[in-house]
Amino acid sequence: MVVYLVGAGPGDPELITLKALKVLKKADTVIYDRLANEEILKHSPKHAKLIYVGKKAGEHYKNQDEINQIIINASKNNNDEITVRLKGGDPFVFGRGGEEILALIKENIPFEIIPGVTSAIGVPTTLGLPVTHRAVATSFTIVTGHEDPQKDEKQVKWDYTADTIIVLMGIGNIKENTTELMKYRNPQTPACIIENGTLESERIIFGTLENIALKDINTPAILIVGNVIDVFKEIKKL
Amino acid sequence: MVVYLVGAGPGDPELITLKALKVLKKADTVIYDRLANEEILKHSPKHAKLIYVGKKAGEHYKNQDEINQIIINASKNNNDEITVRLKGGDPFVFGRGGEEILALIKENIPFEIIPGVTSAIGVPTTLGLPVTHRAVATSFTIVTGHEDPQKDEKQVKWDYTADTIIVLMGIGNIKENTTELMKYRNPQTPACIIENGTLESERIIFGTLENIALKDINTPAILIVGNVIDVFKEIKKL
Repeated sequence: MVVYLVGAGPGDPELITLKALKVLKKADTVIYDRLANEEILKHSPKHAKLIYVGKKAGEHYKNQDEINQIIINASKNNNDEITVRLKGGDPFVFGRGGEEILALIKENIPFEIIPGVTSAIGVPTTLGLPVTHRAVATSFTIVTGHEDPQKDEKQVKWDYTADTIIVLMGIGNIKENTTELMKYRNPQTPACIIENGTLESERIIFGTLENIALKDINTPAILIVGNVIDVFKEIKKL
Repeated sequence: MVVYLVGAGPGDPELITLKALKVLKKADTVIYDRLANEEILKHSPKHAKLIYVGKKAGEHYKNQDEINQIIINASKNNNDEITVRLKGGDPFVFGRGGEEILALIKENIPFEIIPGVTSAIGVPTTLGLPVTHRAVATSFTIVTGHEDPQKDEKQVKWDYTADTIIVLMGIGNIKENTTELMKYRNPQTPACIIENGTLESERIIFGTLENIALKDINTPAILIVGNVIDVFKEIKKL
């Protein structure tokens, strides 16, 4: 038995790696969250069991302990079992892959991790938005915008000093997130939202840190803040 | 004519995307830097012209203007010409892809960008080092450690507040870089170096922000700083 933790990339089914494709093709079980594109699942063999563990409207949302148990149960079925735990983007960029691995280690289940193109980089790169650019950005920070508002002590502090800031899963809290960021950054800093990145339904919305939260935004989407957006406008001749 | 700016991934030739492989297979010209693994070039057709524009010992190092001109000349050869500009990792993570695109736009040469797995994420993920982890790291910063020491005004300021810091191309200046980081971080913060990430020759070196620069390090290598290294040690049972 072996569990592969696999990154599926940012959405476009061709942005999966050869290595990921190889293990997907021999999977007995595929355990997946909401993926930007379910076309990727078609690479798995006909006999493969597909188990969805993401959010479903109106249904109980599986917590991490339940998901860990599903992975463990699948891989313990028999000795030749190949289990693929498929995640959008990269398994360790807010994918809770570390927690799943620690659960596998406790059960002595062997595992391997296959990285993926994170949407935080793959989405802007595909569009032509350079997250780093000479004399404009020599650093960038990737942060989750999804921190639980109930949490006593907030870990996300928003005082990031990197030139470019990329916020994943931050649309639900976009008003709070941009308000926090404005404590440390000029409200006129260029900002943009990319909805459905790398897919045909992709849409870009431009604004500033001050007004981007007022726009009409659909998820999944990422928020990018920084002067690299001006380089992007030059590239797009906007 | 068309130019594809393509990310080759962190090293392991199987960590290239399907999309990148597809264009590489129909390339007439491939213009590449030092790649972690030149196996990737074997996907190009027999007739393809391979042009190396990276550093070579004892020879003149091509500057960005010269590289831009080589890309433009290759793609202008004839109308059906497919030129692949292949870069390690992702084209926009310190890959100067933005500058190359702006040069192509001036010449009205059409282009497309194909992202890759950046070594900043793909190398630690493959190893089992989570760059984000619940209650340990909700943000990470990727920064170049290669800023020209001659530069009058430094853009890299090292006062990054993200939980995990990943430094690319920073081994040459590692003493200076870690000294700067220690102005803002506890010198006892866990640090590690990963040499030749995702390749067979991979090697990991553990230390702290204070002592990691004293270790014997070979390039290419990346530096990671932050408490996620303790999670990694738990995963590796170290």
